[in-house]
Amino acid sequence: MNFTARLREIQRRQNSLVCVGLDADPAKLPASLSGHADRVVEFNTQIIAATKDLVCAYKLNLAFYEAMGRDGWTILHRTLEQIPDTVITIGDAKRGDIGNSSGFYARALLDDFRFTATTVNPYMGGDSVEPFLKREDRGAFILAVTSNPGARDLQYLRVNGKPLYEHVIRKVKSWNTFNNCGLVVGATKPRELQRIRELAPTMPLLIPGIGAQGGDLALAVRHGCDRSGELAVINASRSVLYASTREDFASAARHAAQQLRDEINGYRIKYFSSLSSLPS
Amino acid sequence: MNFTARLREIQRRQNSLVCVGLDADPAKLPASLSGHADRVVEFNTQIIAATKDLVCAYKLNLAFYEAMGRDGWTILHRTLEQIPDTVITIGDAKRGDIGNSSGFYARALLDDFRFTATTVNPYMGGDSVEPFLKREDRGAFILAVTSNPGARDLQYLRVNGKPLYEHVIRKVKSWNTFNNCGLVVGATKPRELQRIRELAPTMPLLIPGIGAQGGDLALAVRHGCDRSGELAVINASRSVLYASTREDFASAARHAAQQLRDEINGYRIKYFSSLSSLPS
Repeated sequence: MNFTARLREIQRRQNSLVCVGLDADPAKLPASLSGHADRVVEFNTQIIAATKDLVCAYKLNLAFYEAMGRDGWTILHRTLEQIPDTVITIGDAKRGDIGNSSGFYARALLDDFRFTATTVNPYMGGDSVEPFLKREDRGAFILAVTSNPGARDLQYLRVNGKPLYEHVIRKVKSWNTFNNCGLVVGATKPRELQRIRELAPTMPLLIPGIGAQGGDLALAVRHGCDRSGELAVINASRSVLYASTREDFASAARHAAQQLRDEINGYRIKYFSSLSSLPS
Repeated sequence: MNFTARLREIQRRQNSLVCVGLDADPAKLPASLSGHADRVVEFNTQIIAATKDLVCAYKLNLAFYEAMGRDGWTILHRTLEQIPDTVITIGDAKRGDIGNSSGFYARALLDDFRFTATTVNPYMGGDSVEPFLKREDRGAFILAVTSNPGARDLQYLRVNGKPLYEHVIRKVKSWNTFNNCGLVVGATKPRELQRIRELAPTMPLLIPGIGAQGGDLALAVRHGCDRSGELAVINASRSVLYASTREDFASAARHAAQQLRDEINGYRIKYFSSLSSLPS
């Protein structure tokens, strides 16, 4: 089954478009975990246990794990072991290199860590992305419009009257032989999200920027979903992980994730007539 | 001392523009090392010992180390311990993320691994690059024109009559407050290299693509150097590492690196009148 079909099936079974970003910052962990030797693993384990029935995906940004030093990759492996295969895992690594080197990155992310999907930077073009697309059941979300202020520096430059990111999307469509390409579009850019969904009506969209970064949730659902009200993967990190910084962090994370899922599902029913109801 | 001045000083002292890419592929190592428990570290250690007086820099592409699994980062640390501080180290990671996450990548590369410089992808713009530029003695080589076929997909798109990579360079110049920005320009693109050296006359250029990728060395020197015949960092990986695949790999690597240095210095004398002679 190709990645897009797999994602759709999981979103239906889980009844959720929520992705929780497991971006644990050791400086922000609850004091109640300070006795644990592996407090990041313990934190992630409790967050996963508390939210795994509420999400379609977990996204792990490798920057956070690399910053933990030599133990970072072990912590990442041990976190991934906690994630059930009822959901997908996204290795948010934003890699991209000449084909030969990208092949090594893909080996690390897809073979060693066994992520279901990755994020990839398009600047180096086709052969830099290709190793992440070799297997139809694994996806790659290619950066289109990112959620940060610097997105304006290059992504919006006009090429033949259209912003650069539209050319990226055109390229990604040409790479999508196996139906396993997706796009990253920040929730902080709702108009661009609408335009991108028009350009790529059947592609999964990974949408970060909800919560701490201030993206509008209603618009993310309305413009990010495909016609069936699916294939948007809406990521929240800090607003779930740090919903409480006390001992009750896991139940607070569950509450935040549940609220997010329900709010999203409310908008799905509102905006997509085919979803007159959803299981609750 | 800012990174650019530091690089210039090291190139003068070492009398070399050569950078050796320590991109060890376990599948390509000499059979004579098969008895070693840590054969990648042993290989790198012998390559460094055989070439350290002939180079200005070592570049370590993180893709190769990440593909080695959980031990990869330890192997990378142990390799870096072998490199003397008479040369610079380049963490070729091509990272780039929203500012908060890029800060974590910079922490890993600059604080933990203590690389002198990194490579950075510009697609996400200013706040994604900024954490790599915070310290004036550490450099960041930002991707401009890469050496791979996919470079054509985005980097050459016309924006206001100029290729996208020229806009990248304009941005990089605006970020170069501390004189610690450099650019990556593939040796496979000599005309672009010439144009980029005109646009950024005093910036370090990291030039991969010599050797296995087929870039022209004479043109790389002629167009890549600044007016003093310096600040080009010319990388060779496979042609040095695998000059011999037998027991004599280290002396063969030394011979290849020496030949490359001397050939480059010959072109420097030919093309830059200020360098009528160089110490040999």
